[in-house]
Amino acid sequence: MQELTIVKVGGKVVEEAENLASLLRDFSAIKGPKILVHGGGRSATAMAQRLGVETKMVEGRRITDAAMLEVVTMVYGGLVNKNIVAGLQAHQTNALGMTGADMNIIRSKRRAKGAVDYGFVGDIEAVDASGLTRLLTAGAVPVIAPLTHDGQGQMLNTNADTMASAVAAALSDQFQVMLVFCFELPGVLRDINNRDSVIDRITPEIYQALKKEGIVADGMIPKLDNSFAALEQGVAQIRITHPQGLAGGADAGTMLRLK
Amino acid sequence: MQELTIVKVGGKVVEEAENLASLLRDFSAIKGPKILVHGGGRSATAMAQRLGVETKMVEGRRITDAAMLEVVTMVYGGLVNKNIVAGLQAHQTNALGMTGADMNIIRSKRRAKGAVDYGFVGDIEAVDASGLTRLLTAGAVPVIAPLTHDGQGQMLNTNADTMASAVAAALSDQFQVMLVFCFELPGVLRDINNRDSVIDRITPEIYQALKKEGIVADGMIPKLDNSFAALEQGVAQIRITHPQGLAGGADAGTMLRLK
Repeated sequence: MQELTIVKVGGKVVEEAENLASLLRDFSAIKGPKILVHGGGRSATAMAQRLGVETKMVEGRRITDAAMLEVVTMVYGGLVNKNIVAGLQAHQTNALGMTGADMNIIRSKRRAKGAVDYGFVGDIEAVDASGLTRLLTAGAVPVIAPLTHDGQGQMLNTNADTMASAVAAALSDQFQVMLVFCFELPGVLRDINNRDSVIDRITPEIYQALKKEGIVADGMIPKLDNSFAALEQGVAQIRITHPQGLAGGADAGTMLRLK
Repeated sequence: MQELTIVKVGGKVVEEAENLASLLRDFSAIKGPKILVHGGGRSATAMAQRLGVETKMVEGRRITDAAMLEVVTMVYGGLVNKNIVAGLQAHQTNALGMTGADMNIIRSKRRAKGAVDYGFVGDIEAVDASGLTRLLTAGAVPVIAPLTHDGQGQMLNTNADTMASAVAAALSDQFQVMLVFCFELPGVLRDINNRDSVIDRITPEIYQALKKEGIVADGMIPKLDNSFAALEQGVAQIRITHPQGLAGGADAGTMLRLK
């Protein structure tokens, strides 16, 4: 089966000019079919502030009211996405910026109001693997912003990590999928203050132990939960690393394995 | 040769909810391959005002400094484009939002500073007709925002009328192209105060006479100049009408012909 590389980059990686420049170079150097999924939360928060739109977070998650949906649609789908696309084109990478609405590649359902009303936030219902495969086969490099739609005309804000995992899982029937989560650290660290303490390999058993020890906590927990779910759905390999790790070969960063 | 319909809609048509709803319905009813090119100037001006970015116009053309480029990239490429895409998807139209940077479909060159420095404004250099044809053949409906790129990583603001004409001309080798300019009036009017005074047909000779009489003036002149140039480059048919004219068959509005 052909390899497909899916890279998810966090906001900080694409929002600072120097980081973005090296990401564009390293991502462009990846051979074969590939997809980039990006965040943009810091830019959205900054733009919201300039517009006088209040940013409300509950347990690290953004509340997306109508005014905030306008901001994230502009910032994720326009500003961040098109700057990445134009930058990749300068590296001869045939980038195609998309949201879940474009060609209906990712449809979601607005999250029901529970204890918290997250507003215009979508939980993924369907990924069009055959549509994405046709684009990849045609040589396009999808650059996916963290937005989906409900199929009824409503755009919805959606978590970029979750989108990357869902796309990786959906494409695992057609490709041997290598999923790489890029963020500002070189991997999952045993000691958060020591960048040389990267944990090479995490299995579900090791993960449980690391959680008990408090070494893995906070924002890393949903990322790892998502990742192990994606591995169970057939994703071949998942790595957590910083963008420089993209060029560092398969060993860079933390590798997640089912066993 | 297969027919291809290219519809260009002005800002007012896509920026008011009621107009947009009828456009989405009428555009979705068009049979065969099709492309939508949209504006968004009013939304950009409104967003710029909210952000404290000054809108400067010279002879009806926007000056695009760095701050305004950020605004139009967000508003055209994100807010306006994605709302149209999600709305078309709700009508089972397989919309794919794009700028000229996406898949490098339209490359431009930053306009040289003359008497006026228009800033980050691009004049079209190349349209990738074969890339667009592949997308159309795959069933995608490109929805194109008025932005291009220079191939070096720079997004550029570009006139939507010009983009529609350039795309129509470039695709005329592969398709019998029907280009429709939709705006708020039912066609070119003999009497601007009488919506029943639509001129059915304009040839280059009639155009010269209408200009002399002062019936065609201002913003309509570049639109018609563009159109006759496109006809000379092989575009099969050009009409100027309001969105309701899309559903009205080939007779609605003003038809432009070389003779």
